[in-house]
Amino acid sequence: MNAETSSLTSDRIAETLEVLRRVTPRIHCITNAVAQSFTANVLLALGAVPSMTIAPEEVAGFASSADALLINLGTLDETRRVAIPNALGAAQDAKRPIVLDPVFVNRSEIRCAFARDLLTERPTLLRANREEMTALFPSREPFKALGDTATILAMTGAEDQIGASGRTIRLGNGNPLLARVTATGCAGGAVMAAFLAVEPDPVIAAAIGVSVFNIAGEIAAERASGPGSLVPALLDALYMLDGQDVSKRLNIIEQREGARA
Amino acid sequence: MNAETSSLTSDRIAETLEVLRRVTPRIHCITNAVAQSFTANVLLALGAVPSMTIAPEEVAGFASSADALLINLGTLDETRRVAIPNALGAAQDAKRPIVLDPVFVNRSEIRCAFARDLLTERPTLLRANREEMTALFPSREPFKALGDTATILAMTGAEDQIGASGRTIRLGNGNPLLARVTATGCAGGAVMAAFLAVEPDPVIAAAIGVSVFNIAGEIAAERASGPGSLVPALLDALYMLDGQDVSKRLNIIEQREGARA
Amino acid sequence: MNAETSSLTSDRIAETLEVLRRVTPRIHCITNAVAQSFTANVLLALGAVPSMTIAPEEVAGFASSADALLINLGTLDETRRVAIPNALGAAQDAKRPIVLDPVFVNRSEIRCAFARDLLTERPTLLRANREEMTALFPSREPFKALGDTATILAMTGAEDQIGASGRTIRLGNGNPLLARVTATGCAGGAVMAAFLAVEPDPVIAAAIGVSVFNIAGEIAAERASGPGSLVPALLDALYMLDGQDVSKRLNIIEQREGARA
Repeated sequence: MNAETSSLTSDRIAETLEVLRRVTPRIHCITNAVAQSFTANVLLALGAVPSMTIAPEEVAGFASSADALLINLGTLDETRRVAIPNALGAAQDAKRPIVLDPVFVNRSEIRCAFARDLLTERPTLLRANREEMTALFPSREPFKALGDTATILAMTGAEDQIGASGRTIRLGNGNPLLARVTATGCAGGAVMAAFLAVEPDPVIAAAIGVSVFNIAGEIAAERASGPGSLVPALLDALYMLDGQDVSKRLNIIEQREGARA
Repeated sequence: MNAETSSLTSDRIAETLEVLRRVTPRIHCITNAVAQSFTANVLLALGAVPSMTIAPEEVAGFASSADALLINLGTLDETRRVAIPNALGAAQDAKRPIVLDPVFVNRSEIRCAFARDLLTERPTLLRANREEMTALFPSREPFKALGDTATILAMTGAEDQIGASGRTIRLGNGNPLLARVTATGCAGGAVMAAFLAVEPDPVIAAAIGVSVFNIAGEIAAERASGPGSLVPALLDALYMLDGQDVSKRLNIIEQREGARA
Repeated sequence: MNAETSSLTSDRIAETLEVLRRVTPRIHCITNAVAQSFTANVLLALGAVPSMTIAPEEVAGFASSADALLINLGTLDETRRVAIPNALGAAQDAKRPIVLDPVFVNRSEIRCAFARDLLTERPTLLRANREEMTALFPSREPFKALGDTATILAMTGAEDQIGASGRTIRLGNGNPLLARVTATGCAGGAVMAAFLAVEPDPVIAAAIGVSVFNIAGEIAAERASGPGSLVPALLDALYMLDGQDVSKRLNIIEQREGARA
């Protein structure tokens, strides 16, 4: 991996988006009940093929025949608690990238303990906001805590930070109106999973996923009159997104090569 | 409580909406599978913060750290049947307002019996349409049946009636197109829960919830070309709603002070 | 049944749509978690009344008091596996039409075996795409395999084919953008169930359902800027659809009378 292939540029985002649309990767999503429909629509608008079953008997087959796996811990009921390890094991055996999104671990200790267990399995990417990160790593700075493992971290917020082991990309795209629509964060995790399926460098793949979703969100917010009209506009923007949009809007705050570069 | 603070006026609605947007109350919703996503989006558009898990192990924690609880009996499966008493108990211990929405009790005897049990726990508000009320109280006029308890009743329909113990508010806002979108009634119950979290008089809180939702529905129906475009328009209208909209449109058919006033 | 009443014409579609809107049939749907909300909205926009519970204790009551039953095998978890036979038996006892939609049987052997079991119960209609049909009938041409039973087949795709025992209708309406929205196929199955509730000839009912849904999809695709704006436009188009739209757009590729005509 040379310096060029390991950096984020608008050309690289546009090319990878092209690849994704040509490859149409299958993404299996174990996600919360609130996010299922919107997440499937986001993946379809992007150009990926979602499957969404959470039935414990079925998830291993779906996960191993998919190109990436999303595990989102929202609405973590008994069925999901059983299905998640099944899907995780199948995806690991098939060497598929895995995204873990520990929704609301800051509001449920059971869920937080479950997420910590999953982290020992070294998913490819951990996506969380600052409150969730603090709940998971109460005594350490998250990027350092994760530095010991193979897991990449994507901390989302007004500014998004992606990295591990000193390698860091900080991104500034997005619009506050996205936070007024349910499951936008969850769907963003699915978009990262879709790019992990087609881009081998996981830091770059995660950064592309964040950028594509947030740039589409910016375009949509400019066209929307509120959070209701934002939803169709966001899906349309993901579907129509091209290299010009990316090149005009991409906001890289910082890109720093570390031990891995 | 004086006569002024216990009456519904457009100024009071506008002020309470301001309070809600500033406070951003957390509303925990145990609601049906069809309504979860739309209900979360309605609460976010309004200015509240939804949580939606139905996992029995988690709901007590979510309900007690929320500012109000919605219990909606649609798609009443085993998980929900176990979760609801857990959440109800936690909300009662934390002295949080509780809204009960006994969806389709007129079409399921099991559900009707379950709803009657919940009513003995005296939720703050019972929200139902006429058919559901008749199923719950086959031999008595609902407002009289509920007069014995602390529970406020909101009977929805072309005209909405809110009250208890002789105190009554009848409201005439809304649009028939709302009935052509699934879960508008369910989401309306969540809006009432959100106002119960910030307004101490439960009759007024319920009436504000009904009015805000239905006025947003009127605005949306005027802009929509059908039930599809009504959904984004309704969320946008909730997000943008201001005192002028309320003052221009509020339709109070009757407001009568009773024993409680 | 004479030749005239058993053929599909735009006038017949328009008249049956009128009947449906007047009768407002109740359709009980056991469908997947991703499709529930959209399917309910499609049925409401069309003019039918959906119910969506999957609780095993409740489904028999809902299915027998409904005018048709949809069984969709997406997200086939334990609850659904128990609920489906309960609902199926109740609908059979009440002599209600039943639509079976074996989503993704080509990706799950458990689901495929479950679907084959259900087929022995002779549902009124089997709706599936070519991959799902091939998984169900690996060694026989589907229309011939089903010729032995009372079940009508609707094979969906760029071209839709409906028939049984030599009787065939091939239809060419629709738009590729529909495939970029989740659950459009699932919702299309619900529309067929709604027409089976009001039209006694099941081949004609299925063909009307396909045509109405796909013509609305064409109208919507012309108005949409992508898959996001397609959703509200599709619901609006279903709600507004009239005889002129049908007459202008209906695309019957072939209509052939067989043994049943």
